[in-house]
Amino acid sequence: MVVVAILAAGRGTRMKSNLPKVLHSLGGRSLVERVIESVQPLSPSRQILIVGYQAQEVKTATLSIPDLEFVEQSVQLGTGHAIQQLLPYLEGYTGDVLVLNGDVPLLRTETLKHLLQIHKEHQNAATILTAYLPEPTGYGRVFCNGENIVQQIVEEKDCTPAQRQNRRINAGVYCFRWQDLAKVLPHLQANNAQKEYYLTDAVTQVAPVMAVDVADYQEILGINDRLQLASAYEILQRRIKEKWMMAGVTIIDPASITIDDTVELEPDVIIEPQSHLRGNTVIQTGSRIGPGSLIENSQIGKNVTILYSVVTDSIIQEGSRIGPYAHLRGHAEVGAGCRIGNFVELKNTKLGDRTNVAHLSYLGDTTTGNQVNIGAGTITANYDGVNKHPTKIGDRTKTGSNSVLVAPITLGNDVYVAAGSTITEDVPDNCLVIARERQVVKPDWHPKNRE
Amino acid sequence: MVVVAILAAGRGTRMKSNLPKVLHSLGGRSLVERVIESVQPLSPSRQILIVGYQAQEVKTATLSIPDLEFVEQSVQLGTGHAIQQLLPYLEGYTGDVLVLNGDVPLLRTETLKHLLQIHKEHQNAATILTAYLPEPTGYGRVFCNGENIVQQIVEEKDCTPAQRQNRRINAGVYCFRWQDLAKVLPHLQANNAQKEYYLTDAVTQVAPVMAVDVADYQEILGINDRLQLASAYEILQRRIKEKWMMAGVTIIDPASITIDDTVELEPDVIIEPQSHLRGNTVIQTGSRIGPGSLIENSQIGKNVTILYSVVTDSIIQEGSRIGPYAHLRGHAEVGAGCRIGNFVELKNTKLGDRTNVAHLSYLGDTTTGNQVNIGAGTITANYDGVNKHPTKIGDRTKTGSNSVLVAPITLGNDVYVAAGSTITEDVPDNCLVIARERQVVKPDWHPKNRE
Amino acid sequence: MVVVAILAAGRGTRMKSNLPKVLHSLGGRSLVERVIESVQPLSPSRQILIVGYQAQEVKTATLSIPDLEFVEQSVQLGTGHAIQQLLPYLEGYTGDVLVLNGDVPLLRTETLKHLLQIHKEHQNAATILTAYLPEPTGYGRVFCNGENIVQQIVEEKDCTPAQRQNRRINAGVYCFRWQDLAKVLPHLQANNAQKEYYLTDAVTQVAPVMAVDVADYQEILGINDRLQLASAYEILQRRIKEKWMMAGVTIIDPASITIDDTVELEPDVIIEPQSHLRGNTVIQTGSRIGPGSLIENSQIGKNVTILYSVVTDSIIQEGSRIGPYAHLRGHAEVGAGCRIGNFVELKNTKLGDRTNVAHLSYLGDTTTGNQVNIGAGTITANYDGVNKHPTKIGDRTKTGSNSVLVAPITLGNDVYVAAGSTITEDVPDNCLVIARERQVVKPDWHPKNRE
Repeated sequence: MVVVAILAAGRGTRMKSNLPKVLHSLGGRSLVERVIESVQPLSPSRQILIVGYQAQEVKTATLSIPDLEFVEQSVQLGTGHAIQQLLPYLEGYTGDVLVLNGDVPLLRTETLKHLLQIHKEHQNAATILTAYLPEPTGYGRVFCNGENIVQQIVEEKDCTPAQRQNRRINAGVYCFRWQDLAKVLPHLQANNAQKEYYLTDAVTQVAPVMAVDVADYQEILGINDRLQLASAYEILQRRIKEKWMMAGVTIIDPASITIDDTVELEPDVIIEPQSHLRGNTVIQTGSRIGPGSLIENSQIGKNVTILYSVVTDSIIQEGSRIGPYAHLRGHAEVGAGCRIGNFVELKNTKLGDRTNVAHLSYLGDTTTGNQVNIGAGTITANYDGVNKHPTKIGDRTKTGSNSVLVAPITLGNDVYVAAGSTITEDVPDNCLVIARERQVVKPDWHPKNRE
Repeated sequence: MVVVAILAAGRGTRMKSNLPKVLHSLGGRSLVERVIESVQPLSPSRQILIVGYQAQEVKTATLSIPDLEFVEQSVQLGTGHAIQQLLPYLEGYTGDVLVLNGDVPLLRTETLKHLLQIHKEHQNAATILTAYLPEPTGYGRVFCNGENIVQQIVEEKDCTPAQRQNRRINAGVYCFRWQDLAKVLPHLQANNAQKEYYLTDAVTQVAPVMAVDVADYQEILGINDRLQLASAYEILQRRIKEKWMMAGVTIIDPASITIDDTVELEPDVIIEPQSHLRGNTVIQTGSRIGPGSLIENSQIGKNVTILYSVVTDSIIQEGSRIGPYAHLRGHAEVGAGCRIGNFVELKNTKLGDRTNVAHLSYLGDTTTGNQVNIGAGTITANYDGVNKHPTKIGDRTKTGSNSVLVAPITLGNDVYVAAGSTITEDVPDNCLVIARERQVVKPDWHPKNRE
Repeated sequence: MVVVAILAAGRGTRMKSNLPKVLHSLGGRSLVERVIESVQPLSPSRQILIVGYQAQEVKTATLSIPDLEFVEQSVQLGTGHAIQQLLPYLEGYTGDVLVLNGDVPLLRTETLKHLLQIHKEHQNAATILTAYLPEPTGYGRVFCNGENIVQQIVEEKDCTPAQRQNRRINAGVYCFRWQDLAKVLPHLQANNAQKEYYLTDAVTQVAPVMAVDVADYQEILGINDRLQLASAYEILQRRIKEKWMMAGVTIIDPASITIDDTVELEPDVIIEPQSHLRGNTVIQTGSRIGPGSLIENSQIGKNVTILYSVVTDSIIQEGSRIGPYAHLRGHAEVGAGCRIGNFVELKNTKLGDRTNVAHLSYLGDTTTGNQVNIGAGTITANYDGVNKHPTKIGDRTKTGSNSVLVAPITLGNDVYVAAGSTITEDVPDNCLVIARERQVVKPDWHPKNRE
């Protein structure tokens, strides 16, 4: 049984932002959301977010997460002071408390599980996460005996030159036996330059404390400025891309693309440079994405190609070819074997199989049958200035170039709309519909004649 | 006289692919095609591909390469077993055999020439390629005497700690005096965990064997998974980009672009970020490509600019400006001093000099004269639902906005097509042609009036 | 009082270019412009550019820089020979001369200020800039006593193995007491393989000479080929991006974007991958740029989003959303809360607030009121083949799909243009205007019927 406490009260001055630090986004989710997600597989008995700076904004942003409790730290007087705020909420609690930082978003659940397991096995007063940093400057050093029992934690500035050689540092992640911690918390002192109450001081006042090393020191990277935010994103991206490459996805130029960790890819997908896969996107085998495509919250079938296009909230069936310069959005559904060409926008539109919309078209609120051919420059006038209206197009129907379909309208099967026609009324099956003038030729004409 | 044998029978399980490993693409050509290309300047007397896993697919994919022979290794029992399959094909052969791996695509021809030359000069039983790796873990180490005569090849797992310090490794590329090899091949043993017949064992059974170091260890990188495929691509790209930069091409941000090794560039070409040059593309001096452009199998003249556009199978003459968001394909030919603007598609279309297609147009199967001005939204209706038809436009002709030219159609010289007109019949020189209604104004109108 | 002399006479053979080396562009300005800019805050009494190869081109390219003098070095016989050319121009001058290289563009003004200050404080005959290089091969090594007084400058090729270990090198940037230098300049010898007169020889003939180390050795990178040009750009970009990240700008993938050093960004701007910010661009807080956008010489207000678009010489007010695939140019002005959607071009056009141009439109030389809705495919025919004409559109007016407005034209407030209409005459307020045929339906039609 473990209670999770997440420190999320700080401002993050070095972010130079109006947003509290823990709400900054890292690959589609905020820092604190990532920390909360990492603990959910631990099934904590309670999850407590300690909020302070812009507390209301942090609460609002995490409102949708179930079973999250908030404790306010109205003035920010250090990590020890933050955990002191838990005392009234955890009175009489006899289990453990896992303390995490809301600005350390890369910690893996496996690392936390390992920490908790060691804590449980050894029944110490506290277990702390440590890391060996290649460059430990600035961090407190942790000194242990041969059984990993902490002997001393020394702040950088208090280190002797010899101590400074120790690259094992305190990662700021702790599991406490709450009753032991609760005894020492009220007695913390703020005897330091910042006049803050440090949780590290509490660690030195309970015993025994065991240290557990994180396997990959990059997990403990904290975010204090935008450079660190960019570094964390790069680490996260490298994890994700390596995972998919090892699972059989070809990524031509891994450094140039981004993939959210919510995306699912099948083997033999090929990702060309400068492509971005976001949200709840799934891409099936044999598809080739990019260069230069953004796919968000979309389902892409087998053997689809998407070249220099933007696809959001849409579905594309097997074998369809999209782009370059196409834009699918607002629940577009493209059938199998379709071709959506350049300068085409589909919005809330469902196309049957083997239907082509090859050039310079806008289809909105439209449903088509199979084997339809939408001519270049065809536009559905779905908006009358007040409301949106639907367009329905039957199988094998063809629209001429620069035609307009004024919705609400229904074209039957095998209809042929003449080029340059604006169609305002329904057309039954097997008809040609035409709405234009015959051409008139004026000879011996010169532009200067124009009045 | 040398016979080349290329090992291409493996599945490449770690690729997690339906495609056999050697058919994976690296910068436009498959791994095995690259290996075959690297040996062609050696003028081998025979080139033999040893195929096995998906043998038929490998054969089909390499069918167009002249004088390539296939030998089947129906079960894959190791490299030694693969070369054993050559015995019936090379009976009585008295020359040398160069053994290469179909999944080692970065070896330079110069390296192979050097290996063959040393082999010829020294008249040894075999000559093997070695490399000094910065991180040799996992590779067999090669130990030589002062004359580079191999004394021992020790697998990683059999190395003493001292031997493990040796960073000289076996690159898996061999030149054998065939008659020596042919004697020992039948006696190979599969006394190992994998129960495989290793060609390395044969190396140790002929003598003397000389080692030749590769100058650049990156050449011997083998492809076993998609991470290694991405690494190989990066190495290949760095080679290509450095070559062009040293030849006088400005590449603003080299890491962000890709250039196939089939592309030709002249000095003082400027490549902006996120551009991709592919296939048989040639770009002449003074042209600026990108950002964000894809040029494939196209000829670009002098002082052309191409901004955020896709150009495939096309020709652009001197001084023309393309993009942003233009798409040229299917043998578009753009004359000198033209401007092709945003949201314009040209397909199988030839434009004269100083002709502008500045906005939102589709020209297909069209030929224009010089100094033509295609108005915004002009579309050639080249497809009647059954066939494609041509459009011809004379010199200095101008089309109005949103006009449609219904093909087959010919407009003469100095024709002026009125805006919003759909033109269905030929128009002689010096004419204004118009096909539209006069406007009617209904006062005191409100959208809610709409029926 | 200091005279600045900039060496800009060399050809730069390894650039393989028609352009003289110092005119190559680095992030929007030429190498020599960058060097000149770096000295302007020093308020030099004179700025002299020593030109030679393509002297006229260099003069023309720097013509707009005030108070720049040119001295010709008609044959290029080395750096010493170049400075000799100053003798007639500086006769009787009693101050200092700062010598810079026109191909070393990354030197910071602070570094030069520090050099001049040390020179002034210590009153030596000369002060030279030195750097500790991680890899000093190829550079002359500088040996000093404990007071940083230069004892010896030894060329790489004349170094003993012990001397070669010295990583402190001569950066080629000097401040001379002119009267001391003027005495030794006429006596320089060209006793070397290149038969050139070296300024380094003059340094060894005046005394005492003090060495001042540059803090960041990357500042002294000289540009001799396009690889070094690319490296310099990367260094420059890293400086710029780190500056903005520390100032509160989120850059999702810093390696993939470029920002000119003339750009201004506010905190909480978010730059998505593959975006390029150029020229005199200013972006206000809360805006999100990219992926895949190019913004040049434009003012972007608060909370604007620009997705996959090109914006040049334009202004976008607060809260507007642009793209994907929009193109704003030639002084487009977009009001607050507007939406400019896909395949839309705005040129020399001013839109009021809450106005939408959502799809497939070209507006040129147009002014609109507020809350206007421009229908998909609407085009302003602003060019009659001879001149450009304006279009004016009142508040709340709506144009139908594929309508054409033939300029010069004025539509009043609350006008409604019917879809598919070509409008050629002014329309007063509150009118519906329509210019099209009624549709005719021909039943039992088949494409093969088409004559």
